Amino acid sequence: MPNSDHISKQFDAELEAIRANVLQMGGLVERQILSAIESLITGDVAMMNRVIDDDHRVNAMEVKIDEACSHVIARRQPTASDLRLVMTVVKTITDLERIGDEAQKIARMAKLLSQKHGLSMPRYHEIKRTSEIAVDMLHKVLDAFARLDVVMAAQVVRQDEQVDTEFQAIMRYLITFMMEDPRTISLSLEILFIAKAIERIGDHAQNIAEYVIYMVKGRDVRHITVEEIDQEIRQ
Amino acid sequence: MPNSDHISKQFDAELEAIRANVLQMGGLVERQILSAIESLITGDVAMMNRVIDDDHRVNAMEVKIDEACSHVIARRQPTASDLRLVMTVVKTITDLERIGDEAQKIARMAKLLSQKHGLSMPRYHEIKRTSEIAVDMLHKVLDAFARLDVVMAAQVVRQDEQVDTEFQAIMRYLITFMMEDPRTISLSLEILFIAKAIERIGDHAQNIAEYVIYMVKGRDVRHITVEEIDQEIRQ
Repeated sequence: MPNSDHISKQFDAELEAIRANVLQMGGLVERQILSAIESLITGDVAMMNRVIDDDHRVNAMEVKIDEACSHVIARRQPTASDLRLVMTVVKTITDLERIGDEAQKIARMAKLLSQKHGLSMPRYHEIKRTSEIAVDMLHKVLDAFARLDVVMAAQVVRQDEQVDTEFQAIMRYLITFMMEDPRTISLSLEILFIAKAIERIGDHAQNIAEYVIYMVKGRDVRHITVEEIDQEIRQ
Repeated sequence: MPNSDHISKQFDAELEAIRANVLQMGGLVERQILSAIESLITGDVAMMNRVIDDDHRVNAMEVKIDEACSHVIARRQPTASDLRLVMTVVKTITDLERIGDEAQKIARMAKLLSQKHGLSMPRYHEIKRTSEIAVDMLHKVLDAFARLDVVMAAQVVRQDEQVDTEFQAIMRYLITFMMEDPRTISLSLEILFIAKAIERIGDHAQNIAEYVIYMVKGRDVRHITVEEIDQEIRQ
């Protein structure tokens, strides 16, 4: 049946386009985080403004991919693994969009900090390192999504603990810093919220990792432990 | 055609069951927030433990509704407003589940606080009031979902600013409190994170409100202003 073959090829092409758009959106979001952190450290206000302004591009991609998913469901009636892909995409782009929001928040806070306090802030080194773990998680989870790689997705789930540990360390340091000089409290809280935004980026990457495992294995792993996930992917 | 009529009735019943489950999940999440805040204020550790333990019920409902949605899509091939309902549900339950996580976090922090500091904490009155606004938002948005009421959904979007304002006020107060007595810094940060959790509950309720408007109007309002939303729902 050449006709149904034709339809099936079109369908594949549509799914492929959706997948490519998700990776493109993920790449944009990754650059937004990197620029937000870089601008925080260098005090480059033009770069902060670019991050803030570019958030609408992330939002527009979410809306566009969402529409493409609805379109595919309505027109192609996907089932089984195709349907799981589409549902995974619908959820993934929500988390990507919220990572974009966190990057925008970091850029806004960087702007406030650059106006108020000059450029030498406590714990920027640790902030940078934590953001590198979060960006690595995002990068890996997008790879895992592209390659249907559950082992890599499970690594991302495990990596989230590192981000949480780093966040706790930053918080403990800032508490000491504030206690030694209470005049730094307001500044320290702003840095704490930046650290919190990075921690949340890690959480979102972890969410996406769990969707990827669901997509590939057809089994929902959102509410089980890391050990259970490891067992699951070995099956 | 009695046969297609029969299928259509079954389909309606399935959509109705999904809708009812979302409202039930929303009701459970609402009780989780109320109990978390009440236990924080009264220091009732048994209640804190119940909130922490009951989070798995919220998670289980998310997984169950998610499966029902995939099932309906695969079997019934919904289009137009039926498809929009299903997609709205898929997104809504993600936010409900994360509201549940925030309630659990509040209960955990309440437990830490009750162990460390006894029961009289600063700003509990304001914490309670802010949580009441957030719960009201959640309650309203579930009503709006049930009745397809876009006007009420738009109110919820607007209400989120109140929660943000209250959060800022709590933060400013806590900064003064910490500066006056740096020994309270650690305690104050815990209260700040509770306030932050409540602020996030407001954000999730706002997200759901935007999905409801999309479901009813067929127009995505996630990335436009409150004023534009008002214009949209008047059309």
